[in-house]
Amino acid sequence: MDVDRKDLRILKAIADEETRSPERIAELTNVPLSTVHYRIDSLQERGIIRNDHYDIDMAALGFPITFIVEVIAEHGEGYREDVGDRLLEIDGVTQVYFAAGDTDFIAISQLSDRSMVESLVSEFESMDGVVRTKSTFTISTLRDGHEPLQQYSMETLVDELLDQER
Amino acid sequence: MDVDRKDLRILKAIADEETRSPERIAELTNVPLSTVHYRIDSLQERGIIRNDHYDIDMAALGFPITFIVEVIAEHGEGYREDVGDRLLEIDGVTQVYFAAGDTDFIAISQLSDRSMVESLVSEFESMDGVVRTKSTFTISTLRDGHEPLQQYSMETLVDELLDQER
Amino acid sequence: MDVDRKDLRILKAIADEETRSPERIAELTNVPLSTVHYRIDSLQERGIIRNDHYDIDMAALGFPITFIVEVIAEHGEGYREDVGDRLLEIDGVTQVYFAAGDTDFIAISQLSDRSMVESLVSEFESMDGVVRTKSTFTISTLRDGHEPLQQYSMETLVDELLDQER
Amino acid sequence: MDVDRKDLRILKAIADEETRSPERIAELTNVPLSTVHYRIDSLQERGIIRNDHYDIDMAALGFPITFIVEVIAEHGEGYREDVGDRLLEIDGVTQVYFAAGDTDFIAISQLSDRSMVESLVSEFESMDGVVRTKSTFTISTLRDGHEPLQQYSMETLVDELLDQER
Amino acid sequence: MDVDRKDLRILKAIADEETRSPERIAELTNVPLSTVHYRIDSLQERGIIRNDHYDIDMAALGFPITFIVEVIAEHGEGYREDVGDRLLEIDGVTQVYFAAGDTDFIAISQLSDRSMVESLVSEFESMDGVVRTKSTFTISTLRDGHEPLQQYSMETLVDELLDQER
Amino acid sequence: MDVDRKDLRILKAIADEETRSPERIAELTNVPLSTVHYRIDSLQERGIIRNDHYDIDMAALGFPITFIVEVIAEHGEGYREDVGDRLLEIDGVTQVYFAAGDTDFIAISQLSDRSMVESLVSEFESMDGVVRTKSTFTISTLRDGHEPLQQYSMETLVDELLDQER
Amino acid sequence: MDVDRKDLRILKAIADEETRSPERIAELTNVPLSTVHYRIDSLQERGIIRNDHYDIDMAALGFPITFIVEVIAEHGEGYREDVGDRLLEIDGVTQVYFAAGDTDFIAISQLSDRSMVESLVSEFESMDGVVRTKSTFTISTLRDGHEPLQQYSMETLVDELLDQER
Amino acid sequence: MDVDRKDLRILKAIADEETRSPERIAELTNVPLSTVHYRIDSLQERGIIRNDHYDIDMAALGFPITFIVEVIAEHGEGYREDVGDRLLEIDGVTQVYFAAGDTDFIAISQLSDRSMVESLVSEFESMDGVVRTKSTFTISTLRDGHEPLQQYSMETLVDELLDQER
Repeated sequence: MDVDRKDLRILKAIADEETRSPERIAELTNVPLSTVHYRIDSLQERGIIRNDHYDIDMAALGFPITFIVEVIAEHGEGYREDVGDRLLEIDGVTQVYFAAGDTDFIAISQLSDRSMVESLVSEFESMDGVVRTKSTFTISTLRDGHEPLQQYSMETLVDELLDQER
Repeated sequence: MDVDRKDLRILKAIADEETRSPERIAELTNVPLSTVHYRIDSLQERGIIRNDHYDIDMAALGFPITFIVEVIAEHGEGYREDVGDRLLEIDGVTQVYFAAGDTDFIAISQLSDRSMVESLVSEFESMDGVVRTKSTFTISTLRDGHEPLQQYSMETLVDELLDQER
Repeated sequence: MDVDRKDLRILKAIADEETRSPERIAELTNVPLSTVHYRIDSLQERGIIRNDHYDIDMAALGFPITFIVEVIAEHGEGYREDVGDRLLEIDGVTQVYFAAGDTDFIAISQLSDRSMVESLVSEFESMDGVVRTKSTFTISTLRDGHEPLQQYSMETLVDELLDQER
Repeated sequence: MDVDRKDLRILKAIADEETRSPERIAELTNVPLSTVHYRIDSLQERGIIRNDHYDIDMAALGFPITFIVEVIAEHGEGYREDVGDRLLEIDGVTQVYFAAGDTDFIAISQLSDRSMVESLVSEFESMDGVVRTKSTFTISTLRDGHEPLQQYSMETLVDELLDQER
Repeated sequence: MDVDRKDLRILKAIADEETRSPERIAELTNVPLSTVHYRIDSLQERGIIRNDHYDIDMAALGFPITFIVEVIAEHGEGYREDVGDRLLEIDGVTQVYFAAGDTDFIAISQLSDRSMVESLVSEFESMDGVVRTKSTFTISTLRDGHEPLQQYSMETLVDELLDQER
Repeated sequence: MDVDRKDLRILKAIADEETRSPERIAELTNVPLSTVHYRIDSLQERGIIRNDHYDIDMAALGFPITFIVEVIAEHGEGYREDVGDRLLEIDGVTQVYFAAGDTDFIAISQLSDRSMVESLVSEFESMDGVVRTKSTFTISTLRDGHEPLQQYSMETLVDELLDQER
Repeated sequence: MDVDRKDLRILKAIADEETRSPERIAELTNVPLSTVHYRIDSLQERGIIRNDHYDIDMAALGFPITFIVEVIAEHGEGYREDVGDRLLEIDGVTQVYFAAGDTDFIAISQLSDRSMVESLVSEFESMDGVVRTKSTFTISTLRDGHEPLQQYSMETLVDELLDQER
Repeated sequence: MDVDRKDLRILKAIADEETRSPERIAELTNVPLSTVHYRIDSLQERGIIRNDHYDIDMAALGFPITFIVEVIAEHGEGYREDVGDRLLEIDGVTQVYFAAGDTDFIAISQLSDRSMVESLVSEFESMDGVVRTKSTFTISTLRDGHEPLQQYSMETLVDELLDQER
């Protein structure tokens, strides 16, 4: 992936301080301002820093319930792709993974209240190619997925991304 | 939560276009530029728009594996809070929920490779107050949680946040 | 239990019409009024008709969520009785059963919202002698347990209570 | 829901004393008799106090077995509504819920003996749109759902219904 | 079932001593010989003592493996009876029960070796109306079902069959 | 096991006809009477025919409920033997097996009614070394284990006991 | 199987020393060289020693992930054989077993990385006659199946293969 | 990993023909004999070809039963390593993996008969740090793990080991 220790320090500063100011990043990392500019541009080009936009807090907006659904798809030629595509089209489904284990897909959604849960469950159940669902109702959120890089120490980043043979 | 239809149109434009330009938002929503400025300020004050910063793509950075762990905590006075706190301290754990059903917590992490999975599983297992874990290894990501508001139609937003009696 | 067909007709009229008027019951069942009086007294004495009071609709009052928890108790001398007693003391737990199968107890409660669910789950988990719980969050109620006798046909009542050898 | 502390005291007295006498309620609550009359009328109008009738003890009548069935319905357009409707038509089924988790419906019934259990299971199994059932046979009843408000302390009622922001 | 204490003593002597000698039974129970004769006749007429024949030890004969299969039948009109009938026709299946819980039938068979297990599993799997099976391979037998009455104390027999209200 | 085709024909006749008359067996099998006598003696000596006694029908006597309990024992030195021994001591437990799979023991008992089920479950749960139980309540009996040899065709017996290399 | 103690000592020496030198085997076992030659020839003829070839380390070659899939096949005439045959044709599937319990087949494969896991899971799922799969992702290998005889003590070999009545 | 297409052709010929003759390999692969010698030496040095020895067929020797045990270890500091080490010491355990999912370890063994299964299960259960086991008894073997490279087409080998970016 071709990041180095300097890139990681910049990314970590962005995440920890929740900032986009090159000056602030330069100050925090002791990397010269021009290098910060250059590195951020490069990280954006490589898709590591995504487009620049506002981050919306779904719970604060009125969707506090994270609802996790394991989906078992009908087996057969092409079913997996079809069901995956259909899951992506459902309103409110914000994460979808294809999984090993005893489930086929895991779909995570952000919902407003019990009646929206009911609508969503109905949509899953009437979906073609879905055999069974197991849903988990979360009661409270200890951490949403916002700003993931805050949850990695600099040491872990270096170990996992720079030093390891893979 | 006191958002109105105008707020929703602005938020939807931010998410769909992945923009932070007030001019672009004004153009897309037909809301006067000064109102856009005012509304965005207000949404930020109320915490619906979070701090302004770069969004980092964890998979592109080198953490492509989403690893989902269901945690069953030991039962007893205070255990729940303790285990919840400990889960939040583990490197790489980016989402934690307290759940109803047959599990106590769901912890989601972003990992680099099999050896990081092994370290994480070891950390969970040696954690005090954890009785059992069930982990799900995801094979591929169809959608990460990035830009959730793109996954809601304007109609759903209006229905769920404005029109419904709750 | 020594009920006869006449008793069953009276009980069925009480349940179906949701009435306590002897005159109305006499009219509906073609049983003479004095017999209706006598039979209702007798059914009350035998505990089949319970004390006379108002029936409160918990959902209308503000507790719309039925939350069902399967409880596995620690095994050992006397544990079952102890856990049973403790379950009966928790606020909001309206039904408790001792069960065959893979669970020990089933406790059903009526709750107001997600934060009350969270409190209840915490209480179950910190209860001494409880090893594990599996909870089911109901999304909507198709029928609450109110007025059960409406759900039996006269034919079923006669078959089950009068004609069968047991 | 618009109940206040005075309403709650009246409802609690009705439930705890299993009474419908306004005089007794006035005495127990220190609310003036005329207010008690007025409040009870209002609670009836709002559907919180249901129709006035006798409460029948199903176990005493001859249906001592509470039998709980989890129903997994076939997935597909409209199936959920159809199966829900059919469950409501079965004799002896006194509670039906639509659920999150690994089941679709939970149906609770009051039965007389093993042969009535057998009939009921047969009816569930031959029902169109039902894929699988998991039933729990209860061995004894520690508390039936009768008089639910007795299981809430006055403090819980006030906390949940009056003071909380929701 | 109309047995009395004298019947129970006779039945218990038959089981404990594995005898059919009226003289030995009379001696063991202190019941006069003529009464023993009369009682045994009566117990045979009522079907409590079955036909008089030799008891064969299946393990000694060459079928040492008890193999327990839980069968989930397809749901639908009449399926249960059909599958039940078919289970009864399979060679080696010595016990069949219709069950509550998460299975429909439990079929127990006595088998000779692994290749007979394989044949039996194949027969179950190719049976029309069987959706799934879960089998349990027993490693050793601590007690086969032979002579069940030996496993009840005289006190239990009296309690369960004579003194209890049911 | 040293049985031959002649032995099998005799055993099959005993089981199918539920007889102990050597004359009847000779007639049915075309084996000379003296050989029948000799063979039965020999089968008794080798323990294949067990002691000669009456067979008691537990359901007819008043124990119609077959109750199957899977027992998970605490792991540790010697636990298995201890728990096995304790299971054998419980009144009404007529079959006990040590099993492969997700359970340790399977104990089958014949019970009279729901209150005897409750007693038995309590005994299992308060037993030292038992971690968890899963019980299956049978609703009806399609075949009890009585006269197992009736459920084998002559062809199966020959195949399994005489012709197969093992 | 007609092996004796001398055969076992030779086989154990082959496995423990990972050798094919008759001289080395003769030295280690104190069996005369000519006997070693004769015995190895005989063991090869009986198929106990397989053809003589190189052993390839799949993990070292680039397939470090052992992936275990439990397969539940559709029930019906002939399905088992068909599904078994199809499993054997999938690239990378190195072990296949037909099983008792709650699964039909267990298929073990050696894979290179997550994308090969994804391909394999897709192949299983689009296979005709496969109803459901449950896969287990192994994180690390403590021992692969290479050189199994090293894992048996000489004492176990003698006990299991020579001394036991079976 | 550094294998090329020529190495793969040589390895594939070794596996498919079950040969160790360089001449035969040269003939089959059209690789010059001297190169075959050189390449095999190099593959041995890199550990891809393991030591040169006889391959023993465990089923033919008298251990036909593959027995698969999922082990759940006690959670806590260091437990995982300890349990892993102990599993490796048990006689007959030929494969051990550390797993993601709902189990901690998977241990696979080759056994002779039911009584060896019983001994092994007892050893697992009396092992310190093992909380629960789930075992799967295989009824027949469709393919043992012998000669894995036969199960990969040349195309798969090239795709997975040479052409893919990882």
